[in-house]
Amino acid sequence: MSLVVVGSVAYDGVETPQGRVERMLGGSCTYAAVAASFFTKVGIVAVVGDDFAAEDFEFLSGRGVDLEGLERAPGKTFFWAGVYSEDMNDRTTLRTDLNVFADFQPRLPAAYRRQSHLMLGNIQPALQRQVRAQMEGCRLAGGDTMNYWIANTREELLETLKEWDFLLINDSEARQLAGCHNLRRAAQRIFELGPKTLVVKRGEHGAILFHPRGHFMAPGYLLEDVFDPTGAGDSFAGGFLGYLAGCGLDLEGAGAETGELRRAMIYGSVMGSFCCERFGVDRFRTLTRAEIDGRYQEFKTFTEF
Amino acid sequence: MSLVVVGSVAYDGVETPQGRVERMLGGSCTYAAVAASFFTKVGIVAVVGDDFAAEDFEFLSGRGVDLEGLERAPGKTFFWAGVYSEDMNDRTTLRTDLNVFADFQPRLPAAYRRQSHLMLGNIQPALQRQVRAQMEGCRLAGGDTMNYWIANTREELLETLKEWDFLLINDSEARQLAGCHNLRRAAQRIFELGPKTLVVKRGEHGAILFHPRGHFMAPGYLLEDVFDPTGAGDSFAGGFLGYLAGCGLDLEGAGAETGELRRAMIYGSVMGSFCCERFGVDRFRTLTRAEIDGRYQEFKTFTEF
Repeated sequence: MSLVVVGSVAYDGVETPQGRVERMLGGSCTYAAVAASFFTKVGIVAVVGDDFAAEDFEFLSGRGVDLEGLERAPGKTFFWAGVYSEDMNDRTTLRTDLNVFADFQPRLPAAYRRQSHLMLGNIQPALQRQVRAQMEGCRLAGGDTMNYWIANTREELLETLKEWDFLLINDSEARQLAGCHNLRRAAQRIFELGPKTLVVKRGEHGAILFHPRGHFMAPGYLLEDVFDPTGAGDSFAGGFLGYLAGCGLDLEGAGAETGELRRAMIYGSVMGSFCCERFGVDRFRTLTRAEIDGRYQEFKTFTEF
Repeated sequence: MSLVVVGSVAYDGVETPQGRVERMLGGSCTYAAVAASFFTKVGIVAVVGDDFAAEDFEFLSGRGVDLEGLERAPGKTFFWAGVYSEDMNDRTTLRTDLNVFADFQPRLPAAYRRQSHLMLGNIQPALQRQVRAQMEGCRLAGGDTMNYWIANTREELLETLKEWDFLLINDSEARQLAGCHNLRRAAQRIFELGPKTLVVKRGEHGAILFHPRGHFMAPGYLLEDVFDPTGAGDSFAGGFLGYLAGCGLDLEGAGAETGELRRAMIYGSVMGSFCCERFGVDRFRTLTRAEIDGRYQEFKTFTEF
């Protein structure tokens, strides 16, 4: 194992113009860990209820995901339901039942604390900081956050960010955190908060890597059919960090000419694109490394000039 | 001369978060011709009123733009005024005075008819067709259109498109014309209408080239300051077509491996990005070919992996 992923493991109910699923495996930790599992050995820290299905445990362990850090608590698993707009760029939350996730106190098994890479999914910044503090000599740590924490627990978040090597958020969150619209300027301000690598996710428009040595723009893959965009951003994070962890790279090693960081951005984009091709994590059930590398080459083909 | 550009030469009043200009040179033909003039010799077909300023004639001819096709009619020059939103992704039209442009009947001087490349700015499809018919043995012809013509003169537009080699429109127009949201599918449908090259402009998110041999994605340049996005799309068109005309390329020559079309896309993106750095055409008054090639290299730097 080299990568520890912390976040939510959940059940989701999703409706998109392509169809509807009442209840399926989801959560930020699930998507990131499953995507990363194609590149490296992953351990997860999350909580599920006693309703968590045997087949979902089996799917995760079948992907090689270590479940020692997956706590089982009395009660129900976090449930979220939402419906997407016609163009799938917006979604409306229909239901959020935090259930056992409301009292989530991430505790890292001893073996996890010595791992080299840490991905903190979008949970309370105070909890993210507690996890970071439990790691011993982690080479690369960082994560995600959201508008709610930026607006309501800003001081807490700023304390947390001080100890992160990278921050991986969407464009509106980057603008909100930095307090300016221009992304280049926003990146400069965020560097001053701690993270020296900023990944800005732009949905269908791809993602941008900001680094003191320059920026890199990954386009969004043009899918023929988008079935369900749920988890695409977390799958991006899993591909990005999974690739770096699989290569044993910290930011010093990856960033010398930012070459490995660029490749990690493309693997992130590849995993985000596959995620949208089926509902939930279904595309990852059959995905192969050959398909991943094939799509990576496609990215070369439609960006080279 | 190798490129003929047809469209509007206008005066614009523009307000953006960066400032306000009451009246300045603008119009689709102006932006496209000025951007193209950095790559090839351009002749324009447009109409202005008797209020058109000597300094604006001088600026255009100073850029090497042939003005034989620029008709002077009694009355006032087309005037447009608008105000941009805080993020500059939306704009509200405050005033549209068509003036002499209302009766624009494009007539090509004899010398223009033998040119190799034709860019038809966004005017009535019937007029675009008349111009196309006046060209003798043109190697590469195409242009722009807008939501109004797609919705209200669809049959006329479809007749016009049959004779175009390329179509250069924004993403919402491509979706509207093809009647489907997915851009890959939309491109396939548009190929069936005539143009075998489709350039989809996505504003700050760059542009996509669709071609039967594959697609190419150019990211949007991340500007530190956007002063005025007016004319950026037309400047893109000018850079794109100016580069192809300057190389003497038709789609057969440019498209064998789509290599020159890709380079044309980047030159288009470069010219669109420079356009936004000052109000109106002001950035083009001082721009040098060395700056253009420098930014072209920057595009390589932030897309290579």
